[in-house]
Amino acid sequence: MAAIQARCLYDFDGDIHNGELSFSAGETIYITRQDIGDGWWEARSANGALGLVPETYVEIVSVPEPEFPPPPPPGMLPSAPALYPSNGFSGSPPDRGGGSVQQQQSFDEWDDDEWEDDDGESSNSTIGQNQELGGQGNFGLAAPKRENKKVSPGSEMSKYGTVKSSFSRFSHFAKSGGEAFLMGQTEDKVADSDKIRITDSPDGPIWLKEDSGYTCAVTSPKKESKMKGLKSFIAYQLQPSFSNIIVSRRYKHFDWLHGRLECKFVCIPIPPLPDKAVTGRYEEDFIQERMRQLQAWVDRMVRHPVISRSEVFLHFLTCTDDKKWKVGKRKAEKDEYQGGRFFQVLQTPNQPLVIRDVEGKMEVFCKFVLGMTENMKTLITVHHEYAKRQIGPFKREYTKIGASYKQLAQTFNLDTSPSSRTLTAAIDFTGDAFNDIGEMFAKQPPRDAYPLIESMYEYKGLLQTYPDALKVHEGAIGKVKECLKLQEENKMTESEVQNVVTKADTISYGTLAEMNHFQKERVVDFKHYMQNYLKEQIDFYKKLTSKLEDALHRYDNDNV
Amino acid sequence: MAAIQARCLYDFDGDIHNGELSFSAGETIYITRQDIGDGWWEARSANGALGLVPETYVEIVSVPEPEFPPPPPPGMLPSAPALYPSNGFSGSPPDRGGGSVQQQQSFDEWDDDEWEDDDGESSNSTIGQNQELGGQGNFGLAAPKRENKKVSPGSEMSKYGTVKSSFSRFSHFAKSGGEAFLMGQTEDKVADSDKIRITDSPDGPIWLKEDSGYTCAVTSPKKESKMKGLKSFIAYQLQPSFSNIIVSRRYKHFDWLHGRLECKFVCIPIPPLPDKAVTGRYEEDFIQERMRQLQAWVDRMVRHPVISRSEVFLHFLTCTDDKKWKVGKRKAEKDEYQGGRFFQVLQTPNQPLVIRDVEGKMEVFCKFVLGMTENMKTLITVHHEYAKRQIGPFKREYTKIGASYKQLAQTFNLDTSPSSRTLTAAIDFTGDAFNDIGEMFAKQPPRDAYPLIESMYEYKGLLQTYPDALKVHEGAIGKVKECLKLQEENKMTESEVQNVVTKADTISYGTLAEMNHFQKERVVDFKHYMQNYLKEQIDFYKKLTSKLEDALHRYDNDNV
Repeated sequence: MAAIQARCLYDFDGDIHNGELSFSAGETIYITRQDIGDGWWEARSANGALGLVPETYVEIVSVPEPEFPPPPPPGMLPSAPALYPSNGFSGSPPDRGGGSVQQQQSFDEWDDDEWEDDDGESSNSTIGQNQELGGQGNFGLAAPKRENKKVSPGSEMSKYGTVKSSFSRFSHFAKSGGEAFLMGQTEDKVADSDKIRITDSPDGPIWLKEDSGYTCAVTSPKKESKMKGLKSFIAYQLQPSFSNIIVSRRYKHFDWLHGRLECKFVCIPIPPLPDKAVTGRYEEDFIQERMRQLQAWVDRMVRHPVISRSEVFLHFLTCTDDKKWKVGKRKAEKDEYQGGRFFQVLQTPNQPLVIRDVEGKMEVFCKFVLGMTENMKTLITVHHEYAKRQIGPFKREYTKIGASYKQLAQTFNLDTSPSSRTLTAAIDFTGDAFNDIGEMFAKQPPRDAYPLIESMYEYKGLLQTYPDALKVHEGAIGKVKECLKLQEENKMTESEVQNVVTKADTISYGTLAEMNHFQKERVVDFKHYMQNYLKEQIDFYKKLTSKLEDALHRYDNDNV
Repeated sequence: MAAIQARCLYDFDGDIHNGELSFSAGETIYITRQDIGDGWWEARSANGALGLVPETYVEIVSVPEPEFPPPPPPGMLPSAPALYPSNGFSGSPPDRGGGSVQQQQSFDEWDDDEWEDDDGESSNSTIGQNQELGGQGNFGLAAPKRENKKVSPGSEMSKYGTVKSSFSRFSHFAKSGGEAFLMGQTEDKVADSDKIRITDSPDGPIWLKEDSGYTCAVTSPKKESKMKGLKSFIAYQLQPSFSNIIVSRRYKHFDWLHGRLECKFVCIPIPPLPDKAVTGRYEEDFIQERMRQLQAWVDRMVRHPVISRSEVFLHFLTCTDDKKWKVGKRKAEKDEYQGGRFFQVLQTPNQPLVIRDVEGKMEVFCKFVLGMTENMKTLITVHHEYAKRQIGPFKREYTKIGASYKQLAQTFNLDTSPSSRTLTAAIDFTGDAFNDIGEMFAKQPPRDAYPLIESMYEYKGLLQTYPDALKVHEGAIGKVKECLKLQEENKMTESEVQNVVTKADTISYGTLAEMNHFQKERVVDFKHYMQNYLKEQIDFYKKLTSKLEDALHRYDNDNV
């Protein structure tokens, strides 16, 4: 098969340890394999070097077969749009749409902004929802993040599922830099300020200093424009509690940050940002909803003991100066300790881990993640359906009952005797009460079901990012087993293997610490969610009861 | 057209004043007109007398045209079965059926019983629901009661509706004996004990002594059988509070009483008995439901100031002896003061009435009856539909929500840390609470909606019997106007006309007194219905709220 010629669209600083090929925008390369998967192709550069390239970074210019344009990679196929009701309005949520009108979105959301930096405009017009957008292909140096598909039992959670997808697992482990870290030389020259400490607790390893000690408010979304009004966007104001200095951030900045966090913290699942909007992006309801969702995302990041203290996150929260922004941005993109090298900064307890124990814990946790993902989907559906009933049929039924009593009161009003009048008035009031109850039902979901659904939706997104984090660990354990076998075969020395085992322990410690962090957050979050939901429900039924009591008291009059 | 030859099936003691023909069972008569309507034909007897005959009393034996068997008369066409849920069970009400299997019912319900009296077995096998059974064709002397169709605006309430049905009006007025009373000689030889007094009140004329001063319990339905078990029936035990002597009555006795009351009290609408059952007549639920409905019927009769004191009703409530029963039964059937002659016993205030005022009152009341009939239908429908939703979709939704939380608790149970366990238990409890709430919804209609629906159904039946009572009055007013015209034309003397006017006033007084009785009852009843319904609803929502509060408190634990 003749090689496929491709033009590089952006600079790409590939990680040679991870088998990636570096190239510059405008360069010509030759695609040698398109069956790598997860958004990666294999290519050879003009100077003969072979390596993996992110497929969205290149444009095929000549093909030996009629396969242009190439189909979107599996991880980037838009999934069914996850519509769910918003808290800000009682009608249907705005259409978040699929990929059909993404070109417009691409134009609006990804255009150059006031900080003319090296953000390239993506030419890929089939980007799905944000959480499906595995790669950060729009930022020069970022490697596309792969295998960011939905968790479905037996496919992604390879080791613990029923179907092995070993290439995928190996690939991610290798690509994430996990393997390079595991097999590389120990470089212990990490500055103290960069070190992240893990400590033991009764529940297992935990990140030291759980509480970041600050908060950050996301407020005052403002519609801004540039290019003489041709392009407009929404800027949100962020105000961290430690400085109280407000910074203005667009969705694209959040997106950049998200990509950076994903690249850097391989064992920490980064929750997806709220979905991109296609239509109605400037409508007040949508803007308020997105602000609330961004606030939830920022809250979760601020609460994270590692992320909240990271340089890239603090840069995002604090930088107010264009020049400094660019410097910080480039620095973050060239971060020495991202990907697999992130593990170098971890300071773990000295206690070696028992592989079998760790594997057992991971197996249970995988079950947990898969189970909870399904639970979230089910709960979102049932709550959503119940909310729809409240807004539709419940309200209609009560309105009908109310109207029927109002009509009865009209008939009864034909009897003008005093004894009848009091009853007539009471029945008329009852009709109003039922009407009001219908209205109350329709207005209730934004008070209880929608916030709950929104929280569950957030967790569903978070859970769907987990498999990647776990696969790094799974890869490490696999590699350790491989090395132990090589040692048995005398192909590796004990000290070489011990080096690998120690590093694998670091990966395990990091993964376990994050796992424990997740569980702690979950317990606090769900207590909070359920309490809020139940309180609102109780409030609602109390109000409903008092409406009925008001109606009942109308019949108390002695005249009746 | 050749005369149609018919065989008389039963004795019929026709009222010659009302143009009716008398005949004996087995006699041959000749039908001369079948277009009279309302269940009546015109016929000539062998001796040449011409008069009206109830068509169900005769059987056509030779027809010049192929019109055998004759179609059921309009008033007897079975209407759509009015299914409504019962209080005694939470599923669907038993099928009360149409007319298709009535032969069996006829056999079971109308067979000869332990009191071998002159109840003929009706050969009419197309009897519809009981309230549609206008005629009392199964009791020798009773004239079929006609025009007992459903009230629909503009047809039955002729005068006040949009379409005049003057034949129908005239016919009923004449047949009821109203015209005979109005135009006949004054016979003032009514015994004091027979007199029924009407007095004035601020609301208009009322029956003297509203309260009958006694109650009557309907209890202990017993399945009894005879003919060596070939035939079985249910006997209900009636215990009036004034004697505490229990009498045993079958549905057929109720039905006989109902017919007698309708014949006697022309200006008093007699509420229909509960529907006849076709299937499931011996099922416990059905028997309990019928008992409750018979109790409601007896209650209403006992509360009526005129009916509760009538000889026929007291005979029904008290007679325990077979022989005495027969005597009382025959006496009631030959009652001197039934039909139009009932007005002879009324002792009214001397104050003459102003026709225009009375007409105005009646017009409003007709509107009231028509309006309230529609209101009852609508309310029955909306409450029934809401109840269906509670039993079906509501329960299903809550069960789904409950199951989803139970599943979430199962997943959460994989995290065995103490902080997680409390939350898991709370969520599990929440799942149970939602399940319970689903059950509560499904069990609620028998507590609130069904009793309300049953009461409204009773009122609907009562309202549908009203037009006949009003038509008697309408006929009287029409006749008075006719007479006044005749007086103007010097075809009647002033004293002749005055005699008619005075008698018309008596009819008006009786009609107005009953109207006021109805309105008083309605006010008391609906106050009671609405209070009960609202109290049950309040109770329900309070229970629901406390379920949710129980769930909420599970999250209070400090461990979470």
